Amino acid sequence: MPVLLFRIPRSAFRVESPVFDFTVDATSGCARSGTLTLPHGTVETPVFMPVGTQGSVRTLSPNDLRASGATLVLANTYHLHVRPGEQVVEKLGALHRFMGWDRPLLTDSGGFQVFSLEGSRRLDEDGVEFQSHVDGSRRTLTPERATEIQWTLGADIAMAFDHVVPGGADEPTARDALERTLRWLERCRKRHAELSHGRMGGQTLWPILQGGAHLDLRTEGVRRILDLGAWTGLAIGGLSVGEPKAVMYDMLERLEPKLPALPRYLMGVGFPEDLVAAVERGVDLFDCVAPTRNGRNGSAFTADGPVNIRNAEHREDPRPLDDACDCETCTTFSRGYLRHLFMAEELLGLRLLSLHNVRYLIRLAEALRAAIRRNTLGPWAAEWRRRYLHTGSA
Amino acid sequence: MPVLLFRIPRSAFRVESPVFDFTVDATSGCARSGTLTLPHGTVETPVFMPVGTQGSVRTLSPNDLRASGATLVLANTYHLHVRPGEQVVEKLGALHRFMGWDRPLLTDSGGFQVFSLEGSRRLDEDGVEFQSHVDGSRRTLTPERATEIQWTLGADIAMAFDHVVPGGADEPTARDALERTLRWLERCRKRHAELSHGRMGGQTLWPILQGGAHLDLRTEGVRRILDLGAWTGLAIGGLSVGEPKAVMYDMLERLEPKLPALPRYLMGVGFPEDLVAAVERGVDLFDCVAPTRNGRNGSAFTADGPVNIRNAEHREDPRPLDDACDCETCTTFSRGYLRHLFMAEELLGLRLLSLHNVRYLIRLAEALRAAIRRNTLGPWAAEWRRRYLHTGSA
Repeated sequence: MPVLLFRIPRSAFRVESPVFDFTVDATSGCARSGTLTLPHGTVETPVFMPVGTQGSVRTLSPNDLRASGATLVLANTYHLHVRPGEQVVEKLGALHRFMGWDRPLLTDSGGFQVFSLEGSRRLDEDGVEFQSHVDGSRRTLTPERATEIQWTLGADIAMAFDHVVPGGADEPTARDALERTLRWLERCRKRHAELSHGRMGGQTLWPILQGGAHLDLRTEGVRRILDLGAWTGLAIGGLSVGEPKAVMYDMLERLEPKLPALPRYLMGVGFPEDLVAAVERGVDLFDCVAPTRNGRNGSAFTADGPVNIRNAEHREDPRPLDDACDCETCTTFSRGYLRHLFMAEELLGLRLLSLHNVRYLIRLAEALRAAIRRNTLGPWAAEWRRRYLHTGSA
Repeated sequence: MPVLLFRIPRSAFRVESPVFDFTVDATSGCARSGTLTLPHGTVETPVFMPVGTQGSVRTLSPNDLRASGATLVLANTYHLHVRPGEQVVEKLGALHRFMGWDRPLLTDSGGFQVFSLEGSRRLDEDGVEFQSHVDGSRRTLTPERATEIQWTLGADIAMAFDHVVPGGADEPTARDALERTLRWLERCRKRHAELSHGRMGGQTLWPILQGGAHLDLRTEGVRRILDLGAWTGLAIGGLSVGEPKAVMYDMLERLEPKLPALPRYLMGVGFPEDLVAAVERGVDLFDCVAPTRNGRNGSAFTADGPVNIRNAEHREDPRPLDDACDCETCTTFSRGYLRHLFMAEELLGLRLLSLHNVRYLIRLAEALRAAIRRNTLGPWAAEWRRRYLHTGSA
């Protein structure tokens, strides 16, 4: 009987000599392929981060994530703060040990979540008061609290607490959010330095650029963020929040020349076509719930575009979901079986499509890296779009 | 990146030279440890079969089942007949290929399911007319149809179509069901022989003993089943269907001396204490949905008895679910994290407890085998009960 799968030693979750480093190894146009070194390991970019909102990438185990080639996973500060609470996570050995994930982790600051809680939040200069979606209790997140919670969780990368506005926000609204985000960034930076006692701890803090769809605000934001300190990465927030995709692509394209050489993380993005477009525009890191959420709805990314496995056409189809894929789902099961699992409401179906979709985006990032290193990203992307989007152009 | 997990060659699901064999390797009292050889592999007994009702052991993949040490898995003829239909399974390469399971499979005949459909079934000598729980369509299962469907599915072991009565059935009711089951057995045997053209095919057919809680009926049943032909195994049906556990244990104890040396399969059993008691009474094979159903409800078998992971006491508990267990769940995660998954309604929790419970019962069968081979089953079972049931006696 095969028995002992693995038992991760507790020491695997601790880091003695933390290192933060980023090198760009190759470029193709504006696109970059790099190596991001973090306390819990090395991340090759471009990279897609699966999202473990509540400390679990929905339906998937750490073994599944490792088999999918995931090197960096995201978890949400807001969700872990309201349940089970960061003190519980700390008592259970901090976030890496809690989740059973020994590779790098990034925590979002909770800014995006509390600004998504329409009607049940109150904003002032100090921070945001909101109502927990779990038990209705009143809670407050401030730049300092968000930084402290993330310090307690202990991810490799913590995010600054930011003020997010909808995609179509006008200039004064976007300006207001940018200014507040910059003031909050200074408070986050100060608190993070106190917590790490001025030494390079096991965690780094990344700023988030806001400014809506206003290039001048974004450009000014980049400059003022860089004036605030020496950073190890930069996140682009407030995109993919309701604006048309063309607006996001245009903003990235025009912003790219203003960005420093730091790792660039486009938050909450995205779908396969968004990854390709954003990598072409110089982005390095991505996260999105789409692979697991769509997977649970029966929708799968494939080389030939999205497939809904519930469709009757798959009933007796012996082919794999995606014949270009090497994941456990595609190497083991037919479309007919996967459709059966969804029709019969078997939980295994949710898991198998989530696993495939996560592997799909990680493989896509791997392919983008390879194309950048060969300096053939343009033709590679054209061919990819021809097959995925059934079109000859971008 | 670790990538290609495995790709099972199609040939792995086909068997060129089917073999059916059973040898008893050791005994300890009435308990036996044996080796059951089937077309798709060898099964050491006593053995627990995880239940894949609809062609999937709820939440678990074939890789999980292999890692759990499962050697034999059960699927349900009734469920696969109504959805997706045996013709679809056949077109997708028959049941082994469909499920991605290359080890032995057993299909239940559907008898238990159609007799569980209270109010929506009609019984006559030919068979049972019932209403599909999926689409309400009228369907008929007869001994011949149940045999044909199972032949199409292609499991290693098919079960005869039987008439099941509740645990408290009186003697005339139990006699009627026994007689009908015997008449139906002859029809199943005949149809199975026709399908296999009189040759030993890739599938064997096992009879099911009925007779309720009436020893004389059961004894007569055994004799008449053996008169009907040469069998490769014998199932005991109609127990664990509502009667007190003491009645089941007593029946097994008094029946044991009447049973042939064939592999003995106690259908639908059971909980850990039932496995131990039934093995002591000479049973070799078991199946039950309890490990996966209880797992999805947050209930776990452990060496010290059942644990409900939702209990507040586990909130900050860094210990594994069961420190005696070698499964992925117990070697990776704390009770605190598992509780969090259940409180946060994360699907991974259902899977991790199901995985543990399946491994628990398979490990229990492994431990029973070892104790029988050492001829120390009595003291082993006493010690097991002391810890699991918190009692000094059986």
